[in-house]
Amino acid sequence: MSLLVVGSMAFDSIKSPFGEVERVVGGSATYFSLAASYFASVRLVSVVGRDFPKETIEMMSARGIDLQGLKIADGETFHWKGYYEYDLNTAHTVRTDLNVFKDFVPALPAAWRETPFVFLGNIDPRLQLDILAQVRNPRIVALDTMNFWIGKSPQLLREVIRNVDILILNEAEVRQITGEFNLVKAARMLMGMGPGRVVIKRGEYGVLHLSDGQIFAAPAYPLEMIFDPTGAGDSFAGGFMGYLASRGDGALTEMDYRLATMYGSAIASFTVEAFSTDRLQGLTKEDIANRISSFRSLTEFRV
Amino acid sequence: MSLLVVGSMAFDSIKSPFGEVERVVGGSATYFSLAASYFASVRLVSVVGRDFPKETIEMMSARGIDLQGLKIADGETFHWKGYYEYDLNTAHTVRTDLNVFKDFVPALPAAWRETPFVFLGNIDPRLQLDILAQVRNPRIVALDTMNFWIGKSPQLLREVIRNVDILILNEAEVRQITGEFNLVKAARMLMGMGPGRVVIKRGEYGVLHLSDGQIFAAPAYPLEMIFDPTGAGDSFAGGFMGYLASRGDGALTEMDYRLATMYGSAIASFTVEAFSTDRLQGLTKEDIANRISSFRSLTEFRV
Repeated sequence: MSLLVVGSMAFDSIKSPFGEVERVVGGSATYFSLAASYFASVRLVSVVGRDFPKETIEMMSARGIDLQGLKIADGETFHWKGYYEYDLNTAHTVRTDLNVFKDFVPALPAAWRETPFVFLGNIDPRLQLDILAQVRNPRIVALDTMNFWIGKSPQLLREVIRNVDILILNEAEVRQITGEFNLVKAARMLMGMGPGRVVIKRGEYGVLHLSDGQIFAAPAYPLEMIFDPTGAGDSFAGGFMGYLASRGDGALTEMDYRLATMYGSAIASFTVEAFSTDRLQGLTKEDIANRISSFRSLTEFRV
Repeated sequence: MSLLVVGSMAFDSIKSPFGEVERVVGGSATYFSLAASYFASVRLVSVVGRDFPKETIEMMSARGIDLQGLKIADGETFHWKGYYEYDLNTAHTVRTDLNVFKDFVPALPAAWRETPFVFLGNIDPRLQLDILAQVRNPRIVALDTMNFWIGKSPQLLREVIRNVDILILNEAEVRQITGEFNLVKAARMLMGMGPGRVVIKRGEYGVLHLSDGQIFAAPAYPLEMIFDPTGAGDSFAGGFMGYLASRGDGALTEMDYRLATMYGSAIASFTVEAFSTDRLQGLTKEDIANRISSFRSLTEFRV
């Protein structure tokens, strides 16, 4: 089934202990849609400037991502500059140039209003509400956000949270929204606001996935070389939502959600093996299946 | 089979966000031996002062722990004072009074020289070497240490590491010994020094267990209330080594080591539910079996 994503497409300039790159392709919607494209038909709503590489747009299109909702505006593409130290779980922002993203008003093509699966990437909660107002009876809506919006627009963000099914956040965001350090308690508080599931990303420590009465803990894949963690969270969300969308019409079971978590983790583990989307864009079904087997042997035990 | 532990017995004074206690029973050998007592016959080598509570010694003895190697010396028991903030993975030391531990020379009762399983708790590497010189052909020796000894006696510690089979360390210790941030690479470096296995404790993020060609990731149990993390690492080691010792004479398989990791994690998850050994000392077989099932459902997924 179809999966709609609204989020940023960007240039990233990144320094990590393992190298440095200038103005490589990034952005939450870019990572999300590429990750999800291995599982489902993706519909992308975003904006780029005229400087955004045509080859990337063609590559995304070739991967089956529907770009009807991508606006190419006069001006420059959103640019993020940041760095990582050895603790790759924490991104340090040096500079954010919103550029064409400043005036972005996401407009859903009319034919997309009934998309059953929706991912609201990390953008202004006002725009997230805009999108929610344009979709009709979506089956599952998932939400991401960041510390900037949690601090700046807490009321609007609450309103978005009330209207979504799944939160996909990192540890720090969960703690910041709730003011509660313990993640089990914090997740329960978030579920009390509306969503039925909270998926907590913990970087190299994996993912904690909580719903009413169930907890699932997925490890991260212990890589010898994490080149660049940028996009790991959005790749996770893309693999996760893509897998759910691939399950079609049937009722989603707890095991579907768990497997979605593993597919998200598998895709994210590829993303961090290279800068930008270099590794993410050329995966095969076999690569993904092999990584899922590796995850299984990573966690398997028998009494 | 029998399992020997040498380590500290202590009074702890602890402040955590959830309360404060003065001079409660603690120490690495105390936590380790109680945890292991659910699985194997434990032989304890340690020292306490005359102020150490008789009831604790009786309780330990009632749990089947052989205390022939416990010396009761004139003077006061080792005392550790510390606190935790919300990040319960980091203990802050306020004060350490070695007291009778200062002159501790561990002497193995003659009948204990052939103990097949040995745990060298976190004490001066010089004393750990002393013990190694006293045991004859142990089957498996595991080692713990801490930042203090890694900084103070790196050469002696290397010599101990060369002579043991399993390292049971936390993330920070692994990084400090090797100077390598990536845990997979760091574990490989440690295995290059001698031990066949490295078990890395990551607090609320669980355990990473590495051996040649195998990695096992065990989550921590996501508790709603972690009261006091003191003793979690030693309880883990006790459950881990206790389970291995319980497997008797047969060759230990990868699955035995994995299950040992889960039993260690289960026991540690009880320890942190209360201050001191309050929760650890009164477990039933059923408590432990139930927690192992909970761990299974925590990590289970099917393709």
